Amino acid sequence: MHIPMNTWKHLFKLDPAKNLSDAHLKLVCESGTDAVIIGGTDNITFDNVVDLFARVSEYDIPCGLEVSAKDAIAPGFDFYLIPVVMNSNEKKWMMDIHHEAIKEYRHFLTYETIITEGYCILNEDAKAYKKAACTLPTKEDVLAYAYMAEHMFRLPVFYLEYSGVYGDQALVEQVKQELDETLLFYGGGIETKAQAMEMKQHADVIIVGNSLYTNFEEALQTVDIE
Amino acid sequence: MHIPMNTWKHLFKLDPAKNLSDAHLKLVCESGTDAVIIGGTDNITFDNVVDLFARVSEYDIPCGLEVSAKDAIAPGFDFYLIPVVMNSNEKKWMMDIHHEAIKEYRHFLTYETIITEGYCILNEDAKAYKKAACTLPTKEDVLAYAYMAEHMFRLPVFYLEYSGVYGDQALVEQVKQELDETLLFYGGGIETKAQAMEMKQHADVIIVGNSLYTNFEEALQTVDIE
Repeated sequence: MHIPMNTWKHLFKLDPAKNLSDAHLKLVCESGTDAVIIGGTDNITFDNVVDLFARVSEYDIPCGLEVSAKDAIAPGFDFYLIPVVMNSNEKKWMMDIHHEAIKEYRHFLTYETIITEGYCILNEDAKAYKKAACTLPTKEDVLAYAYMAEHMFRLPVFYLEYSGVYGDQALVEQVKQELDETLLFYGGGIETKAQAMEMKQHADVIIVGNSLYTNFEEALQTVDIE
Repeated sequence: MHIPMNTWKHLFKLDPAKNLSDAHLKLVCESGTDAVIIGGTDNITFDNVVDLFARVSEYDIPCGLEVSAKDAIAPGFDFYLIPVVMNSNEKKWMMDIHHEAIKEYRHFLTYETIITEGYCILNEDAKAYKKAACTLPTKEDVLAYAYMAEHMFRLPVFYLEYSGVYGDQALVEQVKQELDETLLFYGGGIETKAQAMEMKQHADVIIVGNSLYTNFEEALQTVDIE
């Protein structure tokens, strides 16, 4: 599959460790979102990833796996989002976990299926922030990470992750100004259509996840951002 | 400048901390090599980098800086080689030194001038190996790094660095087979035309450095590898 990222505006991220009814999953998959991502931080296992993937596969929607744990990587996804945590203190979140994964799964982790994401996690209270041993970057640091993502690593995606809290719009806007080729993904705290439209003014793609599990009806409305 | 890397076969790497006479420098710059790189590990300073750059600039040969120390980065080079040490144990050799450099020098470190190199240092006795806190990778590790350089990071260059010793031809050949788009640079221990021809069979680009300072006449012959 050629991944048509440049046409994307909105993605739903489903957490395999959380419950979503069949009825709600159907609404998500038929919502008009551009793709469904399976990903999370805690309690991600091969079994719950594959179970959720099987349920999403019943619908005609691209499905990607955001890789977080080597043991929870499964074949068959349309694409694989590989986070490189730029503000982690540990090399393993940039390179080493990925190296182990490539040694085992290179037959389906290919140039055509991998989307490497330059991740910047900006919520100190987020599980992912603590797990990846992050440091909170200054505004200048974030802008330089964005610049590096595009100019040094030529990554297809730079991902501002506020993970559960609604982020700093002004910073998202400034980061977008740093980027020409690399797409800006924004995730965190989008619970309403108004918030979705606000962040979509700056980010190329917005990602809605947690709010599917707290206020499903509102979360579903975030797709309508035209 | 559009960097015509795909046409390169041979580079000379000059160490700003070592002495090369004007007569020898002239022979290097007019040798027919594709470009001259300025780079080294110890005692690299802004002053000795700029001094050597000024001397090379008298000749009609592209000149690049291989960035090793943030304080020794100078403007004006045709290109900047940015090593990302894949087998280092420390994130700083992959990301953090680069982040500091980008914050300070982004006005000339741009998409057009940066060549990011996925470095793999394979000589445990090399100064660069020790300085960058490397671990010796297995053959499988090296092949997976090469694969990551191309498929995950889409780096323009994967660099096998034996730094002063002549490397394992069979491994160089296998690494080349992993790569389609990413160019394979080989450096280390090339002292003769015969060795240059041998390694050039597998590597896209060979780099000759140390031997210019030990047996200049032989080293100069390494350019003739057609």
